[in-house]
Amino acid sequence: MVPITFITDFGLSDEYAGVMKGVVYTINPSATLVDITHRIPPQDILKAGVMLASTYTYFPKDTIHVAVVDPSVGSARKILFVRVNGHRFIVPDNGLITPVISHDDPDQIVSVENSEFFLEKVSRTFHGRDIIAPVAAHLSLGLDPLRLGPVIQKDSLATLHFQPAFFSGDKVIEGAVVSMDRFGNLITNISEQMLEPLLKSGGEKAVEIDFSNTTIKGIMTQYHGVMANTPMAIFSSRGMLEIAVNKGSARKYFGASVGDPVRVSLRTLSSNT
Amino acid sequence: MVPITFITDFGLSDEYAGVMKGVVYTINPSATLVDITHRIPPQDILKAGVMLASTYTYFPKDTIHVAVVDPSVGSARKILFVRVNGHRFIVPDNGLITPVISHDDPDQIVSVENSEFFLEKVSRTFHGRDIIAPVAAHLSLGLDPLRLGPVIQKDSLATLHFQPAFFSGDKVIEGAVVSMDRFGNLITNISEQMLEPLLKSGGEKAVEIDFSNTTIKGIMTQYHGVMANTPMAIFSSRGMLEIAVNKGSARKYFGASVGDPVRVSLRTLSSNT
Amino acid sequence: MVPITFITDFGLSDEYAGVMKGVVYTINPSATLVDITHRIPPQDILKAGVMLASTYTYFPKDTIHVAVVDPSVGSARKILFVRVNGHRFIVPDNGLITPVISHDDPDQIVSVENSEFFLEKVSRTFHGRDIIAPVAAHLSLGLDPLRLGPVIQKDSLATLHFQPAFFSGDKVIEGAVVSMDRFGNLITNISEQMLEPLLKSGGEKAVEIDFSNTTIKGIMTQYHGVMANTPMAIFSSRGMLEIAVNKGSARKYFGASVGDPVRVSLRTLSSNT
Repeated sequence: MVPITFITDFGLSDEYAGVMKGVVYTINPSATLVDITHRIPPQDILKAGVMLASTYTYFPKDTIHVAVVDPSVGSARKILFVRVNGHRFIVPDNGLITPVISHDDPDQIVSVENSEFFLEKVSRTFHGRDIIAPVAAHLSLGLDPLRLGPVIQKDSLATLHFQPAFFSGDKVIEGAVVSMDRFGNLITNISEQMLEPLLKSGGEKAVEIDFSNTTIKGIMTQYHGVMANTPMAIFSSRGMLEIAVNKGSARKYFGASVGDPVRVSLRTLSSNT
Repeated sequence: MVPITFITDFGLSDEYAGVMKGVVYTINPSATLVDITHRIPPQDILKAGVMLASTYTYFPKDTIHVAVVDPSVGSARKILFVRVNGHRFIVPDNGLITPVISHDDPDQIVSVENSEFFLEKVSRTFHGRDIIAPVAAHLSLGLDPLRLGPVIQKDSLATLHFQPAFFSGDKVIEGAVVSMDRFGNLITNISEQMLEPLLKSGGEKAVEIDFSNTTIKGIMTQYHGVMANTPMAIFSSRGMLEIAVNKGSARKYFGASVGDPVRVSLRTLSSNT
Repeated sequence: MVPITFITDFGLSDEYAGVMKGVVYTINPSATLVDITHRIPPQDILKAGVMLASTYTYFPKDTIHVAVVDPSVGSARKILFVRVNGHRFIVPDNGLITPVISHDDPDQIVSVENSEFFLEKVSRTFHGRDIIAPVAAHLSLGLDPLRLGPVIQKDSLATLHFQPAFFSGDKVIEGAVVSMDRFGNLITNISEQMLEPLLKSGGEKAVEIDFSNTTIKGIMTQYHGVMANTPMAIFSSRGMLEIAVNKGSARKYFGASVGDPVRVSLRTLSSNT
C-alpha cells in the first residue's frame, strides 16, 4: 500500500488537514498518510509546487501526492490527476504542478470531473475535503484514473511563471534566493549541475559568490568549514547552491529576503585565500 | 481498524502528544492515529468542543475521538466515554463534549473509573497519557465500554455555555464571530439553515450583513466573486456564514476578534447592488 | 511492527521531516511512524536528548527512536546505533544520547558505517535523510545492527555536560529551570525521588520553594489547589518539580528563563499557612 502525501497551506491550528484524512480513512481504512507540510504560506502556489517537485522522488513509486493551495476554489478551475515519472498527483489546475512537469513530461493528465467519486455534497470552499481527498482514497484502492474524467493535454494546463537562474556571459551566473529554511539557510535557484562548467576549471574553490554586500570565496563541503558566525556557500541537500552561516542564521546575518539576487562568478587571479 | 483522533491543547513543541501515541501503540501496535489539531489555545475548552462537533462526522463510524483540554486535571472531575451518532468519544467532564451532544443525544455515557485499563501509575497532571490514551487503545481492541465504569446520565455532565445566534424579529439575525482560521476568515455562529427563511424570499442576494462599520451586500458563492482586498460573505465549508476578504485576511482588514457581533438582515428596497 | 519515532529540529514548515518518512516508506511500506516533535530549537542537542530520555519508555519495547539535531553534519562525527533498556536509538554522535545512557548503561553501541544500507547518494548536509532514515527502515525490517558497522565502547562517545540539582547541606536542594512547556509551566531538574528525604519529615507541606523573589509554601497535588493566577509547585507528569500558575503562565508571571535557579528547603517552624 503506497502512501498518500499532503502539501497544503491549511496550517496546523485549524481542522482542515485532519478532516481530509477522515475522508480518506472513511473510504480506505488502510491508507498510509504522510504530511510533508501544511504550513505553505497561505496561497503561495509556487512554494507548494517547488516543494512538491523536490520531494516526491523520495517516496515510493506510485505514491499519491495531494497538494492543495487553492485560492480560486469554487471557480471553474479544473482539478487534475497527473501521472509523472511513475508518481501520481492530484492538484488544483492553478500552476501548482508546473515545477513537477517542467522536469519531466507527464504520462497522463485527467480532468477530475466524475462526482461519483466525490463526497455527496460538494461545498464551494473546500474541494480538498470534498473532491481531492475522496479521489485520492479511491485511487489508493486501485481506481483507474480514466474513470475520473476526460484525458486532457499539457498545453491546456494553467502554468506558473518561474524566473530560473541564467548565464550572463560564460563565466557569470545570475540567480536569486528562492526560499529560506528554518535554520535561516538561503536556498538559491542555482543548481550544482548549472555550476559544473565553472567548477570544472578549478573545483569548489574556483568560484566566488556575491550576495548582499559580501563576497564569499569558494563552496564549502560542510557547515563548519568556516568559523562560527561566518557566511559561507554550500550545496544544499537538494543539490542547490545555499548561503549559510555556520552556527547561525544567514537570513538574520544578511537581513535576507526571498528574491534577493545572488551572483556566482569565476574567481579572478588576484583573489586572496 | 477505525482511527483514533486527537484534539488537544498540547502544542507541537512539547512531547505530550507523542507520548500519548506511544502509550496507545504499546497497547495496540496496529492502531491508526490521526491528529486533528494539538494547537487549541491553552485551556480553550469551547474551541476544542466546537472543533470536535464539526469534524467527527467526516471520520468513519465507530471512530474513537480523543479530546484533551483539561485545566482541572487532578481534581474530582470525571473522565467520560460517550457514544453519539455511531461515534465514540473520550473526554474530560468539563463541558468539552457539550457542542457534540447539543446536536444529538448520546446513546451511552460511562464514567471512566476502572484503573485496570489505565497506566499502572497515574500522575496528577497528565490524565491524557495515564488514563485517556490507554483507555482509547483498549477500546480500539474491542473493549466493551461498560467495563470502564458505571453508566451515568446526560444531566449529570458538566456543560459549557454557548451563545447561539438568534432572531431579533423575523427579518434580522444577531450572531457573532466564533472563530478565525489561518486565512483570516471570520467564521460566525449563523448557519446556512438558520438563514433559509431570509434567503427563500430572494436567494443569496436577499440579505445584507453588517459587520464592524461595513455593510456587505449578498452572499457570494466563491471567494473571487468580489475584487481583491474586498470584504464579502460566503458559506464556509462547515455551512456557517463566514466573512472573508478575497486574496486577503478579513481578520486584518477589520481588526476583528472572536466575539465581534454580526447582524444579517433582509435588504431594504432602496439598497443598491 | 514497532514504531519508529522522530525527534528533530527540522520544524514543520520545511519538507525535511516528510522526506525522511518518504525514505522510510520506500524501504518499509508497512512502517509505523510517530512524530514526538520536530520543533526542538535549532541545534539544541541537550533539549532533544532530555526529551528523548523522558519519552522513550512510553513506547513499546524494541521501538526505534530516531533523533536528529546535527549541527556538525558533514564532519567526521559518527552516527550511532545504541540499544538501551530494550529500546533502539539512531542518533548523531554529538552527545544527544547522553541523557538516555546516563540513566541506563547501553547494551550495544555500533558505529553506523556500512553504506550498503544508506541512500545511494549521501549528501554532506542531510544525513537524516541519507543515512539515518534508511538505516531505521532496514532495522524495522529486522536487520541485525552488527551489519551496520563495528561495535564501539561507551567511553568513546561524545558527551554533553549536564548540571544536575544538588544538596547544599542536608536540608536544601539547589536546582534550576531546565525547560518551559506550552502552558508556561517551569520544569526543574529536581526530581520527586531527590525530594524524598525532605518530604518524609512532613509530607508535601514540609518544604518551601524559593524562585525569583517569591517563596512558595508546600507542593500541591493539583493545579487548582491554589487560587487563579497564584504561583504554586507541583510534580510534573515526568516526576520533576514544576513551578506553575493556576489558570495562568508561570513563564509570564515570573518573566522566567531556562537556567533560572530554584531552591527547595525544609520549612522553618515560624512559617505560616
